[in-house]
Amino acid sequence: MGRIYAEYELESPVALERAAEVIAGEQSSGTFLKLPGETDDLRARSGAVVERVELLDTRSAPSLPCRIESESFQRGRIRLSWPVETMGPSLPNVLATVAGNLFELAEVSALRLLDVSFPPEFASACPGPAFGVAGTRRLCGVESGPLIGTIIKPSVGLTPDQTADVVEDLARGGIDFIKDDELQANGPACPLPERVDRVMRVVNDHADRTGKKVMVAFNITGDLDEMRRGHDIVRAAGGTCVMVSMHCIGLAGMTALRRHGDLPIHAHRAGWGLFSRSPDIGISYVAWQKFWRLAGADHLHVNGLGNKFSEPDDSVTASAKAVLSPLFDDGPAFEAMPVFSSGQTALQVPGTVAAAGSDDFLICAGGGIIGHPGGIGAGVASMRQAAEAAALGRSLPDHAQQNEALAQAIAAFGKRMA
Amino acid sequence: MGRIYAEYELESPVALERAAEVIAGEQSSGTFLKLPGETDDLRARSGAVVERVELLDTRSAPSLPCRIESESFQRGRIRLSWPVETMGPSLPNVLATVAGNLFELAEVSALRLLDVSFPPEFASACPGPAFGVAGTRRLCGVESGPLIGTIIKPSVGLTPDQTADVVEDLARGGIDFIKDDELQANGPACPLPERVDRVMRVVNDHADRTGKKVMVAFNITGDLDEMRRGHDIVRAAGGTCVMVSMHCIGLAGMTALRRHGDLPIHAHRAGWGLFSRSPDIGISYVAWQKFWRLAGADHLHVNGLGNKFSEPDDSVTASAKAVLSPLFDDGPAFEAMPVFSSGQTALQVPGTVAAAGSDDFLICAGGGIIGHPGGIGAGVASMRQAAEAAALGRSLPDHAQQNEALAQAIAAFGKRMA
Repeated sequence: MGRIYAEYELESPVALERAAEVIAGEQSSGTFLKLPGETDDLRARSGAVVERVELLDTRSAPSLPCRIESESFQRGRIRLSWPVETMGPSLPNVLATVAGNLFELAEVSALRLLDVSFPPEFASACPGPAFGVAGTRRLCGVESGPLIGTIIKPSVGLTPDQTADVVEDLARGGIDFIKDDELQANGPACPLPERVDRVMRVVNDHADRTGKKVMVAFNITGDLDEMRRGHDIVRAAGGTCVMVSMHCIGLAGMTALRRHGDLPIHAHRAGWGLFSRSPDIGISYVAWQKFWRLAGADHLHVNGLGNKFSEPDDSVTASAKAVLSPLFDDGPAFEAMPVFSSGQTALQVPGTVAAAGSDDFLICAGGGIIGHPGGIGAGVASMRQAAEAAALGRSLPDHAQQNEALAQAIAAFGKRMA
Repeated sequence: MGRIYAEYELESPVALERAAEVIAGEQSSGTFLKLPGETDDLRARSGAVVERVELLDTRSAPSLPCRIESESFQRGRIRLSWPVETMGPSLPNVLATVAGNLFELAEVSALRLLDVSFPPEFASACPGPAFGVAGTRRLCGVESGPLIGTIIKPSVGLTPDQTADVVEDLARGGIDFIKDDELQANGPACPLPERVDRVMRVVNDHADRTGKKVMVAFNITGDLDEMRRGHDIVRAAGGTCVMVSMHCIGLAGMTALRRHGDLPIHAHRAGWGLFSRSPDIGISYVAWQKFWRLAGADHLHVNGLGNKFSEPDDSVTASAKAVLSPLFDDGPAFEAMPVFSSGQTALQVPGTVAAAGSDDFLICAGGGIIGHPGGIGAGVASMRQAAEAAALGRSLPDHAQQNEALAQAIAAFGKRMA
């Protein structure tokens, strides 16, 4: 069987080599018990291996509170590996291994998991995305170019009928994709069965009239029974997507939903800031999204360029490229569709194409579509025109000369971008 | 229906009141869409409410990287509330609400969720622990005093037969509880079915001979199918406990396991440091453990006093008291059993009784039992004698005068504690 490799950025009050050995010991056979004659053999068979230690910096104070006192704190990168034999090709157990009881170690004063790689055993043991990019394009009827989407607003508070009215306006505007806000759950104020019923009548009627079926990601986040019921309600009504907040359900929930269902799973990352906001503790999305693709996510949120949150653009770019990168050198790619959102308008589209290195993505704009001065239809058109400009290698102002919706978007949203 | 209340510590480049309003807006109806005549009504019905804002400190620099520049950063506490109508009594959706897209907000430069309270609807909607303190005592046959436990070491690398040999030594030593290391999963090197078979033969034989059935928490962490199979294997062999790493399976996995199974669920918190290590980002265990008790955890790890990790004792104490506190004023207590571990010996037992305010806890000692100079039996005895001393209000040195095992523990481990 193969090995799991994990790379970390860390800071330590002891030498980096020593910290790497402590982590490797703690996260594998770490033992004080001497089994006569067996310890060396056992370590060789089961122990984690320190593959590389790279010192990058030395600081005079710890970045996080640290019990071990020191005059200098080494900062750098380490790479460890583990044999799959000990934990088996099981995502939750890999997570316990590469991101378990190590963030609290006294020997580290900062620790971030940067990347992880899975050996081929995981390609057969894990379901992976059932739809990914190609399946999503097929269901949306969008052969090329980015998928243009939006989020139903207000986030919560609409009745099922009001929700359907918003969806109708968006469908008429030519949108490809609509998602629930992650706060819109299955509460008494707007129960999922009624919401699905009203919304899918609109979507199905629109599809009958125009041939275009808008993909609506209904938020079915809940316990497993709730998610299964929600999925089945969506499918029975002719829906083509379900959404879950991945951190709220967890890896076992995602895998179980994937194995139960047969609709694309739109994975929202509400709560992600907890993993990413501090430069000193957390997990990189480059590593994190791999777990969720293996578990079955088809769409993965990556924030947006120039977003309203705190994430810089280079981090968004790295996340998007990671979501589109094959998971295995030999084997299934398991690629998912990156979802850009937060403060998006036509103006970010060319940069987003460049960031993703592809137009295989979904971009959700709220104000950029609903707040477009020409209305929703013009808002959607402006996003598509911006994607055309990118495909043609033309600047947005040039392309806007023949494209009114894009010109309006530049006039309305340009100042915000400057 | 009732309301969810959540309390946060936060730091902000804008006024705390403003930050509280942004969070309340973002995490509820947060809308730019004007529905004619309805917005005020909708906000009143569905919006989050800022219940309290308390300024505690002002700092001149942001604690975490922050896009909004400012000359001062207010730090304090806020309390928000949400109507249950919008999300329903659903744990994953409460989590998306109180710990969703808010850690990344530009208006905060530090944010920790300190506490959350659930209205009575959750008492009937959530399963809660099936065994808790009373059920665990009954299965272990320990009517009073702390449960004395240990962890199988080496963490990984033992065969099923070697594991059973370790368990046999521990059972003969009079231990109440034994747990797998969280790194011991169901890998080819030590498959769960064989491990359960060998270990339970030892446990059942010991119970037949002595009347005492040791509780062994077998780690069944995995996807839901794996956990169900693992649970059923343990139960069929006469086992009385299963263990999961809660962060690795997620809330939906925990609830599904609870609804499937009929054994106590020992919840390991591997990865917890990610939520707790930074003073500027994360979730307090006081808040966090409530989600897991509602989902069905019977035992919850709280670290140990004088532990080898980075958590200070006051935080461990707060966690333990929280795990034992009733979840509802009127309704089921849903109390779980706190599990102390990490560098524990007889010497920490009286302090632990004081910290928990009770002897309804499980304390797992590794070196303190296996490394006891009188052997495993004396190690276990030393822990019980220390608990007796606490119950009698006697000092350990006093009580050690008539209790050899305790005297040996003080001699062997006393220096470490000083």
